[in-house]
Amino acid sequence: MALALRLAAKGRGHTSPNPMVGAVVVNRGTIVGQGSHRKVGGPHAEVIALSQAGSRAKGGTLYVTLEPCSHLKKRTPPCVPLVIASGVRRVVVGMVDPNPQVQGRSVAQLKRAGIAVDLGCREREARQLNEAYIHWVQTGRPFTILKAGMTLDGQIATARGESQWITDEAARMRAHRLRADVDAVLVGIGTVLRDNPRLTARPGSDLSPRQPLRIVVDSRLRIPFKAAVLEAQQDAHTLLVTTSAAQPRKIATLKGRGVDVLVLPKARGHVDLRSLWGRLGQLGITSLLVEGGSELNAAVVRAGLAQRLMCFVAPLLLGGQDAKGLLGGLSPRRLREAVLLKNVRIEPVERDMLIEADFSTD
Amino acid sequence: MALALRLAAKGRGHTSPNPMVGAVVVNRGTIVGQGSHRKVGGPHAEVIALSQAGSRAKGGTLYVTLEPCSHLKKRTPPCVPLVIASGVRRVVVGMVDPNPQVQGRSVAQLKRAGIAVDLGCREREARQLNEAYIHWVQTGRPFTILKAGMTLDGQIATARGESQWITDEAARMRAHRLRADVDAVLVGIGTVLRDNPRLTARPGSDLSPRQPLRIVVDSRLRIPFKAAVLEAQQDAHTLLVTTSAAQPRKIATLKGRGVDVLVLPKARGHVDLRSLWGRLGQLGITSLLVEGGSELNAAVVRAGLAQRLMCFVAPLLLGGQDAKGLLGGLSPRRLREAVLLKNVRIEPVERDMLIEADFSTD
Repeated sequence: MALALRLAAKGRGHTSPNPMVGAVVVNRGTIVGQGSHRKVGGPHAEVIALSQAGSRAKGGTLYVTLEPCSHLKKRTPPCVPLVIASGVRRVVVGMVDPNPQVQGRSVAQLKRAGIAVDLGCREREARQLNEAYIHWVQTGRPFTILKAGMTLDGQIATARGESQWITDEAARMRAHRLRADVDAVLVGIGTVLRDNPRLTARPGSDLSPRQPLRIVVDSRLRIPFKAAVLEAQQDAHTLLVTTSAAQPRKIATLKGRGVDVLVLPKARGHVDLRSLWGRLGQLGITSLLVEGGSELNAAVVRAGLAQRLMCFVAPLLLGGQDAKGLLGGLSPRRLREAVLLKNVRIEPVERDMLIEADFSTD
Repeated sequence: MALALRLAAKGRGHTSPNPMVGAVVVNRGTIVGQGSHRKVGGPHAEVIALSQAGSRAKGGTLYVTLEPCSHLKKRTPPCVPLVIASGVRRVVVGMVDPNPQVQGRSVAQLKRAGIAVDLGCREREARQLNEAYIHWVQTGRPFTILKAGMTLDGQIATARGESQWITDEAARMRAHRLRADVDAVLVGIGTVLRDNPRLTARPGSDLSPRQPLRIVVDSRLRIPFKAAVLEAQQDAHTLLVTTSAAQPRKIATLKGRGVDVLVLPKARGHVDLRSLWGRLGQLGITSLLVEGGSELNAAVVRAGLAQRLMCFVAPLLLGGQDAKGLLGGLSPRRLREAVLLKNVRIEPVERDMLIEADFSTD
């Protein structure tokens, strides 16, 4: 199962909205087949492993990180009949597929076919591997990571909005790697107007990383036509999210240039974020990186839409009641209304450090 | 020398304004004497170790963490003549005493007496042990630790000033231990008016810890007579620092109650902090813990008076542009004017964590 988990992780960034899956076939103590799901639409891990094993699968054991599929509404044929036909005697499964079309049905089918099934082998790691997929399947919304570069005293920009660069090169490269691993990156129009980011993934090591969908929340559609995020639509697509406050003519012009524009209801004058998250889920966005300024970050956290915090923290103190903190808006009236994080992890990233934590589920 | 360093550390919190010192006498591979300086005015480490060794010191080696004293202007007689009289052949010294009355003079005297001297054995540890003493001797100002309990996003209080309690019990106990290890604790009048702290050291484990001097910076002497920090002067002394804006009659009343009042020059309407730090140095305060609110913290950092940051960080996000950050005031105009910290260390303290860092020397 350890090997199957490692194989599964090879699909990172390329399988969405499918989960990452790894599979290994063992017969009489020898590995006779192994595979991983590498790309959405490509063959499933079990199929690769079993076809590699061929007749040597007979009487053996299949280790698979996620319950095999048995439903038909998708690009590839279901795996369960193949598993049964392969002649394996036993299937060891990391975790049940939370997809309501599967959710234990495949396990039941295998058992009915006389195959022994062991469920929950290294389940914690299997769940962690596909935490974004699990969250998306269960809530219909993308697994959301709030990412920021900040000083030790929690500031992400000076009073005038200067934020480039709080963190060092190594931390920024790490953040680019993160963009390549998620389905979409989201910023507010304030960030576009101030920093004019491209929002593409440019990790130094990988010359052609998968590019995430670039999303800009822009309630009044103020984006300038020359914004960097509107360039190179052939390499990385852009989605502008606005409200009825947007000029229809500007929407038409932008669409003509190949940019997607989504008009959503307003909530207190801004795009309603819960509606947006639901729409992103429908579009198959399973994981989302929010790289907001203070106000967008605060809105996402207060709407309960963030699952993880990833802060690259520089050994700097900026100070100033007027500097921009990680979360803007107004502070809660009482201390006990502060947001509690769990599983705080810290990792040095050269001069800086990465602090990761999970938002408590509500 | 490892043993000598351990012995020295036993004096922590009790030797100021003297340094912590440990000494071990070894003869033919056997420890024949050991000692540490436990209390200001008490015997020096070398004296204890050599008197324990007696005639067995003859021909042996003295390990001492700090250069022995040779000057007369103090409570105890100089150690160098005793070392020479003991008959040791060799003295291994951790570091030269930076005190201008010593500073290598004792080493020279020992050499003139025909004793071999090895300097700088485990010097890094010896210097770290006495970093407060070294800073005080070299600058005339106390080694200053800025201590705060804050959220992960750098907030130390809500907009309304609520700060009790951001951190958990374990972190608060640790902070009490810290109070017992320094010579003085300093807050601003804002903290007294809002939280009414006692500012005494109350670490759970130690029933009668040494109490630091309690210092309140109160430019206009607004402190109420019933403030908790003015109570129990027999156990823990209090120093109020004010300016010419204070009412002379209130000063007299407070002095009549046994509270010290220091009137200092103003700098932009507030107590001039550099003058204050100089006066504290003259009073023999070698180490100072600043437990300020945002404004006092900012003033101390901007005046370049802080040497160390100790932040107890809770896994909470408070948020809000109006919440009180670690450093108040105005943010610098440019990001490159941010304060750079070095040697960032992180240690878990149950639910919270302690982030320690050193301010770059200016």
